[in-house]
Amino acid sequence: MSAYHPLSAEEAIQLARSIPGRFPEHAELECREIGDGNLNLVFHVTAKNTADSIIIKQAVPYAKVVGESWPLSLDRARIERLALETEHKICPELVPEVYGYSDELAYTVMEDLSEYTIMRRGLIEGQAYPKFAEHIGEFLARTLFYTSDLGMNQQEKKVLAGQFVNPDLCKITEDLIFEDPYRKSDNNNYSEAIEDEAEALRSDTELHFEVTLLRHKFLTQAQALLHGDLHTGSIFVKPDSTKVIDPEFAFFGPMGFDIGAVIGNLLLNYASQIGWSSDEQTRAAREARLIEMARGVWTHFESGFRLLWNEGLQDEMSRTAGYQDYYISQILKDTAGFAGCKMIRRIVGLSHVADIDTIPGDKGREAAQRKALAIGKSLVRHHRSIQSIDDIVTLVEQASQGNEVSI
Amino acid sequence: MSAYHPLSAEEAIQLARSIPGRFPEHAELECREIGDGNLNLVFHVTAKNTADSIIIKQAVPYAKVVGESWPLSLDRARIERLALETEHKICPELVPEVYGYSDELAYTVMEDLSEYTIMRRGLIEGQAYPKFAEHIGEFLARTLFYTSDLGMNQQEKKVLAGQFVNPDLCKITEDLIFEDPYRKSDNNNYSEAIEDEAEALRSDTELHFEVTLLRHKFLTQAQALLHGDLHTGSIFVKPDSTKVIDPEFAFFGPMGFDIGAVIGNLLLNYASQIGWSSDEQTRAAREARLIEMARGVWTHFESGFRLLWNEGLQDEMSRTAGYQDYYISQILKDTAGFAGCKMIRRIVGLSHVADIDTIPGDKGREAAQRKALAIGKSLVRHHRSIQSIDDIVTLVEQASQGNEVSI
Repeated sequence: MSAYHPLSAEEAIQLARSIPGRFPEHAELECREIGDGNLNLVFHVTAKNTADSIIIKQAVPYAKVVGESWPLSLDRARIERLALETEHKICPELVPEVYGYSDELAYTVMEDLSEYTIMRRGLIEGQAYPKFAEHIGEFLARTLFYTSDLGMNQQEKKVLAGQFVNPDLCKITEDLIFEDPYRKSDNNNYSEAIEDEAEALRSDTELHFEVTLLRHKFLTQAQALLHGDLHTGSIFVKPDSTKVIDPEFAFFGPMGFDIGAVIGNLLLNYASQIGWSSDEQTRAAREARLIEMARGVWTHFESGFRLLWNEGLQDEMSRTAGYQDYYISQILKDTAGFAGCKMIRRIVGLSHVADIDTIPGDKGREAAQRKALAIGKSLVRHHRSIQSIDDIVTLVEQASQGNEVSI
Repeated sequence: MSAYHPLSAEEAIQLARSIPGRFPEHAELECREIGDGNLNLVFHVTAKNTADSIIIKQAVPYAKVVGESWPLSLDRARIERLALETEHKICPELVPEVYGYSDELAYTVMEDLSEYTIMRRGLIEGQAYPKFAEHIGEFLARTLFYTSDLGMNQQEKKVLAGQFVNPDLCKITEDLIFEDPYRKSDNNNYSEAIEDEAEALRSDTELHFEVTLLRHKFLTQAQALLHGDLHTGSIFVKPDSTKVIDPEFAFFGPMGFDIGAVIGNLLLNYASQIGWSSDEQTRAAREARLIEMARGVWTHFESGFRLLWNEGLQDEMSRTAGYQDYYISQILKDTAGFAGCKMIRRIVGLSHVADIDTIPGDKGREAAQRKALAIGKSLVRHHRSIQSIDDIVTLVEQASQGNEVSI
């Protein structure tokens, strides 16, 4: 029989105490469970009268989403922990450190990031994060390069990919992002006001074709170790620091999926501005800032990735003239397509984003939803023609204005 | 300590006897080791005075190629056995049956195919195999469809792919097919007479670009379970029956790699005819027959694959109008490119083919080598423009005649 059971607060404290060097020997430890209870227990263990603290995250064997309970493999705790360790080795400043774990009990003991804000929350509050694009661009460039056939031993990569076989969580993505929004599904979740949009998504065969290409890439292209769920709720920020958390969807997939996740979520916040800002000038400034953040994510990724390629390429054949440009141009196309898919599903699919869902007025919310869908569809539809980040910005701006799109 | 040791003939007989239902209880068994000693021991166990027989194939922990000894994981025996079982379930008529195995001792007990001829040998002798294209087309259509995201449960596919992580054998392909022919390498092996060709391969940047694209697909695209080494030496034939053996290179890769392997090897035999047939008419007839076989492999694959898709598609999004045509057109391009890579490496790389190497006259052999290289390079160079099997035939015929190639 498995030893798995949900940890008690008392067990969490004992566990915390067993981690060498984290707490003074006789410290009085306190524990609070701070998870949202949907997928994981999250214990915050602190030492009274000190700043010492850690997080213990434990997976539960089900997922609660809108009241439903789905069985979900505990193996995701192993995958998340292994992804954190792999990413932390590559980007120590950008990923929390793992102090201990048990695959059997499905928990990971890790660095406490309580002083950080969840990026999505900060964006909704209108915060600017001038370092964000640089930090996340670096995270993307380094993690994607060093886990790809370009930057790591190609035999070790295959073995590592075998450790990230992640059918349960990939299925969530495959269903919720690459299928449900395009058909009638009990998983879908949108207000009657945008039934016309939902119906249009279901009947748009040309769009389905592009989505199917992207779905096929997601299913088959083991390009690099992805975070797999890199939305702004998986990113902790402070003005001077960025941390990427929660990589339980990690698997070997197409690089553009991670980059597209970040950009798509920035664009969801961009689309939400129409529902938030009563002041035209504030709104325009925030929108411009978000576009520049999205652009910056790509440009920092690209320059970082090219630098790593030029300095640390493991694959001799990839030195061939023109191949780097070609490779990066393909990532950009994928990025646009996946960003679009991510936007669409957050409007009509099961799981939404607070950026748009918490807009107080129905009209403003609906306008934001329609805008997000227009941008998302445009990115998906045109992703194979995109040749530069400027093309993406042009598509976003044209779609936002309800204009005929052309790049 | 591992229990692994090379089996003795006596052990092989005991083993054979332990397989239920293969031999009469008191049969007198005889054993001969018939392997070529390079990669495996192959025991042929027969019952005296009956037709009963089996094969026991055992991996040895090294590969002997042109005198060199490379260490090679015994895990390849598990992979080969699992591939045989998987393929046999899908194509019982086309793959030998597995009767027993030990992963620890790295052996597989399987159906004896002694009454078959190795396809390459038969082709060199000028045999016609009128059923071959149909049989191998069916093998390709069924194994590739039913192990892809189109034809199998997409979560089970990921788990199965994890069982086929095959770094050692993939590395052989990556080095010998996708790298060594395009640079100076101790692995390369060709006569001085074609040094000009070898030098041209090393300096042809445009060709390298196309090879790098194909290499990247091989490294990253987990489309379906491949045989991984489907040359005419891995195929046993009788006039009315075809069996695919030796899938130790099996892994999840791009479908076109397997199809290209078959077609590339038929075209190597095609290119060899110039060195074999003194009689112009015989030669022309054989060449025409080989072209038709290559064409038939594709057309049987394609029609079989479309039928399976239309009847057994598991992936809802792939029903989108136009997607099947697009998908198959991509496989065809890959097929051409991989066929070309396979041809090139058999001329200048480590491991050659008897079709060409055993041509008795130096001049004839050299002419065949140059012809094979011309065809191979043309297929690689133009693979992304190919739109039909006729395009491939046109490229082959133009390259054979030393003409400027255009499709």
